[in-house]
Parts: sequence; structure tokens; C-alpha cells
Amino acid sequence: MAADPRESIEQYKPEMRKASSGQMMRPNRKTNGSGVQAEDTRICVVMVGLPARGKSLIASKVVRYLGWLSIAAKTFNVGQYRRTNTPTPTADFFDTTNPEGERLRKAAAEAAVKDMIKWFNNGGGLVAILDATNSTKSRRRWIQERCEAAGIETLFVESKCDDEELIMSNIKEVKTTSPDYKGQDPEVAAQDFRNRIRNYEKVYQTLDEDEADLTYCKLINVGHQVIINRIKDYLQSRVVYYLMNLHIRPRSIWLSRHGESMFNLNGKIGGDADISERGELYARKLPELVKESAGDRQLTVWTSTLKRTIQTARFLPFEKLSWKALDELDSGVCDSLTYGEIEQLYPADFKSRDADKYNYRYLGGESYRDVVIRLEPIIMELERSENILIVTHQAVLRCIYAYFMGVDQEKSPWMEVPLHTLIRLTPRAYGTVEDRWSANIPAVSTWRGKGSSAKHQDTEASSRANSQDLAAPETKA
Amino acid sequence: MAADPRESIEQYKPEMRKASSGQMMRPNRKTNGSGVQAEDTRICVVMVGLPARGKSLIASKVVRYLGWLSIAAKTFNVGQYRRTNTPTPTADFFDTTNPEGERLRKAAAEAAVKDMIKWFNNGGGLVAILDATNSTKSRRRWIQERCEAAGIETLFVESKCDDEELIMSNIKEVKTTSPDYKGQDPEVAAQDFRNRIRNYEKVYQTLDEDEADLTYCKLINVGHQVIINRIKDYLQSRVVYYLMNLHIRPRSIWLSRHGESMFNLNGKIGGDADISERGELYARKLPELVKESAGDRQLTVWTSTLKRTIQTARFLPFEKLSWKALDELDSGVCDSLTYGEIEQLYPADFKSRDADKYNYRYLGGESYRDVVIRLEPIIMELERSENILIVTHQAVLRCIYAYFMGVDQEKSPWMEVPLHTLIRLTPRAYGTVEDRWSANIPAVSTWRGKGSSAKHQDTEASSRANSQDLAAPETKA
Repeated sequence: MAADPRESIEQYKPEMRKASSGQMMRPNRKTNGSGVQAEDTRICVVMVGLPARGKSLIASKVVRYLGWLSIAAKTFNVGQYRRTNTPTPTADFFDTTNPEGERLRKAAAEAAVKDMIKWFNNGGGLVAILDATNSTKSRRRWIQERCEAAGIETLFVESKCDDEELIMSNIKEVKTTSPDYKGQDPEVAAQDFRNRIRNYEKVYQTLDEDEADLTYCKLINVGHQVIINRIKDYLQSRVVYYLMNLHIRPRSIWLSRHGESMFNLNGKIGGDADISERGELYARKLPELVKESAGDRQLTVWTSTLKRTIQTARFLPFEKLSWKALDELDSGVCDSLTYGEIEQLYPADFKSRDADKYNYRYLGGESYRDVVIRLEPIIMELERSENILIVTHQAVLRCIYAYFMGVDQEKSPWMEVPLHTLIRLTPRAYGTVEDRWSANIPAVSTWRGKGSSAKHQDTEASSRANSQDLAAPETKA
Repeated sequence: MAADPRESIEQYKPEMRKASSGQMMRPNRKTNGSGVQAEDTRICVVMVGLPARGKSLIASKVVRYLGWLSIAAKTFNVGQYRRTNTPTPTADFFDTTNPEGERLRKAAAEAAVKDMIKWFNNGGGLVAILDATNSTKSRRRWIQERCEAAGIETLFVESKCDDEELIMSNIKEVKTTSPDYKGQDPEVAAQDFRNRIRNYEKVYQTLDEDEADLTYCKLINVGHQVIINRIKDYLQSRVVYYLMNLHIRPRSIWLSRHGESMFNLNGKIGGDADISERGELYARKLPELVKESAGDRQLTVWTSTLKRTIQTARFLPFEKLSWKALDELDSGVCDSLTYGEIEQLYPADFKSRDADKYNYRYLGGESYRDVVIRLEPIIMELERSENILIVTHQAVLRCIYAYFMGVDQEKSPWMEVPLHTLIRLTPRAYGTVEDRWSANIPAVSTWRGKGSSAKHQDTEASSRANSQDLAAPETKA
């Protein structure tokens, strides 16, 4: 048996010999996965809107989304600059007739814009988000001129909202989580915050015909109506496309891997195996875990098209949808092999996968980067939806989890996502909250540490290794 | 030397043996390329707008775009139904006070909607476009109710335009190409058409708050401002994303392959070779061809990141941009081989590529389907732009050409795109017009017929075979 099954090609391709010893035999690969030709683009997304309109949530979502697509982005929160001088201001500070407050707020905006320009000039990234109310036309014009002078495009994003319930829910969120009200009585904080909003309302100017020359996107009751003006390039249009799919109603997303499969038992990857006896136990217990974590909410269940996810979801009393895009990472010629067999048959590939797991593409199959690209429509659907439970596969779940938790590409392919565990993610203005429910049904660990080809890695060892990567929350059992 | 370099894997994967003999060794591939989970979706895109607002152009573009992404779509043009009874109506026919005209126009709308529902029920496709003015709220409500009863979602797309120059240019386009004015004096036709528009203007109602419950997209001076209301699902959001990137100002797109390369001379595929002596002659002649076909227009040149396109474009006196997404189809392990070598090394793959060239993915490389997906951002940029000249590669050019000319997937991978020829595409309301300029500089033919592995196919034979696939326009020499 030849050690390298592709040895016979080598004589035809001497220039590839070097590449094949260290990595996959694909020289000169020049296409970038997401198709984004954004190297020359520098965009400042300028948030516009009254407090409690979800601006910070939108900003943080855009940053996470772009990062997930390998586009470096960063938020510059003017409030944070202001807080260095005025840590816990009262509503009076935001009164426009208070000249000292006005001066300090303008200084904070200037500091943020200055840092942002520095960040662009140092090659920090392609998209900066200026998170502040930016509630007057003169302020917006000032930002636009500052950016133009620095060769930065501006995209104004206004969140306009007259849904009282939504605003109140945002106020409650802010009063419990904003650094401005740290340690204060929640009721007093909420009242002060309402007064602060009133002060902004006095001077607030919505984006209108006077600003028809600006590139902007106006979100009216987020997710309901969108007005898009003068979009100029691809990256702007991607950001706007994402924004038009957002809503900011409170919700959670539930994630679970399929129950243990026969392939998991044998240490094989890929395939389309049935779930094992213990996997079946998990499938039967899953409705109970869901009930515990979701109460009476009506969920919609999304599975892949592979048997093990469909079997796992089948006792859930909800509508179900199978997505091809949720199928496991395609391991190409390695499908149905064990890690041991892969190491033996493709030693060079095995090593190069460990060296850059995110970008490694199985021969005839997919990389994590490929999976992220095909998951994008799923993320868009998820953003538009409420109360979705996804039953899918390890690599796919890692990518979805990475999107919501902002895990970077170095770490996400190595995260342990245990079998027989239900994960609930709840997006909040200042981050996503995670809860886990374990079914307490034993399963093999399918987690493999860097450099290891062990069939099943010792679970204790694996969770030790994993805890360095991921601050896993306490699991409810 | 082993005949099949992957033979050694076979013992580990008995279930794959069958697959590998007839096709690529990738069993159970379930992910679909574009990520669209649209099987259950049925959307009627209802055009809204006065005549000469580019509705038919928009409709035909959406159909082509979706078809290019493997999503079956069809336009139902109410005017065509009306024409069976009233082939060449005068403006009076469109006067709302003319009851007979009104009756016939309503009957045409009913016939179109009926046919559309039948088309959906017969599994004809996922997206139908109802192309008519649909200028009153009552007409739109009637369509929405008819669709809802048939389980079809509606997406209203209004083209609103007050740019007189644009309207006049559309009127000129229509008067010369509309079947309504066949054989008539252009000036008389234009005057009649202006009267027809006036009749519609009397009753025209734009989409507004009364219709806030509808899903709609309002294009204001196409490409300038877009209002999006209540988008419901992924496919709707894709269509709207496409629409928001459109403009309908008159323009052309220029396409050219790189000049003949050293790899072309040797019959090798892929790689990153320099252009040959004859390729260099083409590069030097290209500015002249461009001048001849574009006059004094300032173009922007897009190339791939590979040497042969950059070298070919280097004498053009315009701004140039290199796109990774324009790189040649990645032939993976077959990169730098000749077709003869591929046939010898991968006989089964060679055959299965011929059997389904569009979907065949080179081991470790790409398929035409993959290329289409990575070209989507290019198409979006192209739609937003004017006066672009693209210098790229055979497979990539085939995909771009297929998008503009609506060539189907069966045929597009087999089209011959000769070296040393400049192609100009000019989108019009009733189709894309193509012109070609040959540099009259000899080059090898890189076109390969089905089943052949000839290094260079005889050019005469190849153009004969090709003429069945593609109605190539006369080439200007």
C-alpha cells in the first residue's frame, strides 16, 4: 500500500511537491471564501437614534457578524469615552441647556472619532461603528466631514422606534446592565433613564431629505420597515442586508447536537448513521429539557437532512424543518474514517488540519470557512426568527455558537460541544447569555485535542483542555 | 504506477466503491451550493409602476439572476396576455374611462394570474413575476387575495421614478423595441406612448401606509433610495437585496479573456503562467479595440489576481482593480495538468465531469456551481456600476456571460469564449445585446468538446460544435 495515495500524481507536478508535504495539495489558491474584496474599503457606521432604541445591540451584532465573516470591525462607544470623565451622570447632564454637559459630550465624541481614525490608519480593520445617539443634523454633518477628510466612507444607521413596549423592555435591559447605573436602585435608574431620553427627544432630528446626499439606512421598528439611501459599495450593501434582517425583540435560541450515533461509538466521522441506544434515550429526554428551559413557548425545530438529527428531534412536539445547510462539515475522502485511519492515510493533511483547522479543507470536502459561508443564510433566518431550536452536528454547532458568542476563528473549531446537552443562548444588549442543561445520559466524547488521534478522547482531559478556550457556563443538571 | 491513485483508500470504505467508479468519491453530499432552502417557498413578485419605469427590465433581471442561482423563476407579462386580443392598441385603450379597454385589461390580468397559479401548482418554480402596472390599490389587493388563497406569498416591487431623462430614455427604448409599436413610425409611437402614460398617471396610486400590511419594496429612482416593508423570508430578502443593488441607467459591460498564455500553448489548465508572445500582441492591441467599442467612455478595468489577466490589461489607460473572485476555476489536484494527463490519471473523474460539467467539483478544487457562488458579489458590484471592462478566465467568463445572457447550466460550461476577442454586452428592456471585436491575432483554441481530451481542439470543428449551443453574434473584425 502506498503511504500517500496521491504519490502517482507527483511526477506530473514537481512544483507541487513542496506544498503537498506540508499542507493540502492546492497551490495558488487565490479566491477568498466570502468573496469580499474589501481591502481598500474603510467604512464608519454611524449609529443614530434616541436611547433605548437598540443601537448598542445593533452595533455589537454587526461587529460579531462581520468578524464571523472574517471582516475586522470594532465599535467605538462614545458613552465609554464620556464615562472616563463622568462615570455616573444624572439626566441633567444630558439636558441640552446644560453647557458643561454639552461640552463634555462633544469632547467624548471627538475622542472617539480620533481613536477611530487612528485605528483605521493602523490597519485595525475595515468597519468601525460609532455608537452614540448622534441625534442632530449638525453632529452628523460634523462626523461625515471628519470621516471624508480621513478617506473613510460613512454609513448612517438610524434606529427609529415608536413601539412603547419595545422601548420599555430596552429601558429595563439598560437599567439592569448599563455601567451608568451600576449599584443603583433599578426603579430610580429607570426613572432617570426616562428623563435622559426626554432630554434627547427635545433636540432629536430624524434623517430626512436634508440629508439625501448621505448614505444611510433607517430602521423603523427594527425589522418592520427599512429605508435605504445611496448605498455605494459591496460591503455597505452587505451590512445593510444584515440590518434589514434584524429584529431586536427579546428571544432565545436553543442548540443541541444529535444524540450519540453509531459512528460516534465507532469513532468514525461523517456518514449518515442512526443514533445509538443512548442517543435514543437523549431523544426521548429532550422534550423534557426543552420544557424546563423554554416553558410553554412554541418553538420551531430545525434539523439537518441527516438521520441522526431527525431521529433526535422526533419526539419534540413542534413544527420541524430540515436544512441541507445544517448538515455536518463534509469530510470528503475522509468521510466514514476514524481519526486514526486519517492520520495513517493522510499524515500530511492530518498535521495541516491541526495547524489551521479553520481554513483546512478536506480533500473533496469542506473547511470550517466553507461551513460558515453556507451557514450565512441560516444566520439570516435565525436573526429574523424567534424561538428556534436547532438540532445539528458538532462542527456546524461550533460555527453557529461562534457567531452568537463572538468566538474567534482560532478557537471555534476546537471548542467542545458535549453530546446530550441542551444549550440556550439569549442575546442581550451587552452580550449573549448562555445556559446549559445536561440530560445526564452518558455518551462518548467526540472531542479531539490538537495532535491527538485517539478514538474517543478521555472526557475529563478534554474538558480540562477545553476550559482554557471557552468559559463554559455552569451546566444545569 | 497505480491506475487510480486513491485505490488505497478503498479498503477502508467499501460503501464508496460504487460511487468512485462512476463519479467523484463524495457520497452523501447533501449541502446545496447556494444555501437556499426554498423548496416550500412560492413567491409572486408583483411589479408596480407607471409605464417606462423599467419594470420589465427589472422583472427579466430578477428571473435571470434567480435562474443563475438555480432558483426557477418566470415572468408573467400581462401585456402579452392583453396583446392576444388587442395586438396594437392606441393610447385610448388605456384610458380608464374607456370601459371596453378596462374590461380587456382586467381579463388579461386574470388570465395571467390563473396561468401563474397553474405554473406553481405544476411545480414550475419558486418565484413568479407578475409584470404589469398594477397601479391601483384595489388591483393590488385583488392580486394579494388571489395569491393568498392559493398559498402564494406576495412581494410588491414598485419602481417610482421622477428622473425625466431616465423616463425619456426608457420611452425611446420601448418605442423601438415594444411589440405594441411594431412597424410604426418611432416619433408617432413615442407620442402615443407618452399619452398612454398620462392615462395611467390619472389613476396611479403609489404604495403607502394603507398597504402597510403588505410585503413590499419601493425602488425610488432605481438604485437611489429603497423602502423595504415587512420582508418575511430568506428568498424574499435575497430578491430585495438584489433589487437594492440595481440601477437602470443605460450602460454596457465589456468582457475579455486574458491573452494567450504559456499554459494555453502547452494545453495545460490552471496555473499562473505569463502570457505568450501572441498574448502580448493582444494586450497591446486591446486599448484600440476598447476605443473602437467604447468611444471616449472612461471605463474601470477589473482583472483577476493572476498574472495573465494583469499582463493583458496593463496597457489600458484606466483604473484597474484585481479581484480574487475573478480567478480561474480552481482545478485542485488537476491544476497544471493537460486534459490528456487528467484523462489518464483520473479516468472516472474525467468522464463524470463530462456527464455533469456544471456540478463536477475537481478534487480539492471547484465546480462551476462553486464559481457562480463566489461570483455573486461580482455580479452585485457589476449591477451597481457602469462601464466596467473585465479581463478574466474562460470558466469565469462563461459564468458571467451566462448571467447576462441567461444561458442555462447545461450549456454554459461548454460555451466557447475565444481568446483575443473583446465582447460588449448591453442590457436592454427586452434582452441583452452582444457585440464582438476580434483582434485578428491567432491563438490556440482552448475549447474542449465533450469526450475529447485533445490538447488543442481544431478551431473550425469547435466553432461548428459551439454554434449549436450559442447563437454567437457576428464578430466585428
